Amino acid sequence: MVIRPLASSDRADLHDALVRCGAFSDEEEVVALEVLDDGLKGGLEGDYPHLVADVDGVVQGYVTVGKTPMTRSTWHLYWICVHPRAQGLGVGRALQAAAEAFVVARGGERLVLETGGRPDYARTRRFYADAGYVEVGRVVDFYRPGDDCVYFCKAFCAVPG
Amino acid sequence: MVIRPLASSDRADLHDALVRCGAFSDEEEVVALEVLDDGLKGGLEGDYPHLVADVDGVVQGYVTVGKTPMTRSTWHLYWICVHPRAQGLGVGRALQAAAEAFVVARGGERLVLETGGRPDYARTRRFYADAGYVEVGRVVDFYRPGDDCVYFCKAFCAVPG
Repeated sequence: MVIRPLASSDRADLHDALVRCGAFSDEEEVVALEVLDDGLKGGLEGDYPHLVADVDGVVQGYVTVGKTPMTRSTWHLYWICVHPRAQGLGVGRALQAAAEAFVVARGGERLVLETGGRPDYARTRRFYADAGYVEVGRVVDFYRPGDDCVYFCKAFCAVPG
Repeated sequence: MVIRPLASSDRADLHDALVRCGAFSDEEEVVALEVLDDGLKGGLEGDYPHLVADVDGVVQGYVTVGKTPMTRSTWHLYWICVHPRAQGLGVGRALQAAAEAFVVARGGERLVLETGGRPDYARTRRFYADAGYVEVGRVVDFYRPGDDCVYFCKAFCAVPG
């Protein structure tokens, strides 16, 4: 598996992964595609750097991060998407680790992410908890009734005051 | 006091209020002005509706809200800014109440906001707590060392599942 920057030839494969992974609503897919196109334009130095996972020449997923405006060194992890045909191979874990290395290399000191509180997102929440992300907040019914927003954060080093 | 939609003739007065209120960093001022210009273009039906407080013909502050993408009925309150010469007159309270009425009239069921955890923001946090906002999360050192992000939420009605 190789984790590399997004290329324009990845767009169709990543669109397919977005649709098939089943984690995103129609509106979320539209937003994700807009952000993907922004990532293609801006590259790794733009507002929404993307990294993709290439397994034996086939693109199987991607991660999107971004520096959080109006903060000194906080970044957001917007989403990790893995094609269902590749789940269980450690693609999500590799993307998460690569995103963290990318952020730390740019002076980032923490990653914040928001994910759903629904029962069918339990595996996603456990994925982040296992990687050292700590639940730091929750807005009840944020996305829709019964679907909270859960805030997670992972800090990368102690920051001297 | 009249709370009314933003007009293009308000821009200079609101820029002055932003600079003088002392609550915003240079970067925050730049972002706030960009959002103000977006509010001028989009009006009350755009992504960033603005309401201004007009006290005896003088614009003394404003509030910015926005529907939260990918949610059914959640809105964000981005900021309330009051010119220092008008503080203590209830301008902030009137803007907050008007923003809530605006959101509720459009089917909004909760407002989420993020504010700073610094000691000099204690008055701001108390302002929101007194208005019924509940602290629902916190990211330590989010803005910079010693300046947490504090998430508040106010729900407007029970949502049937």
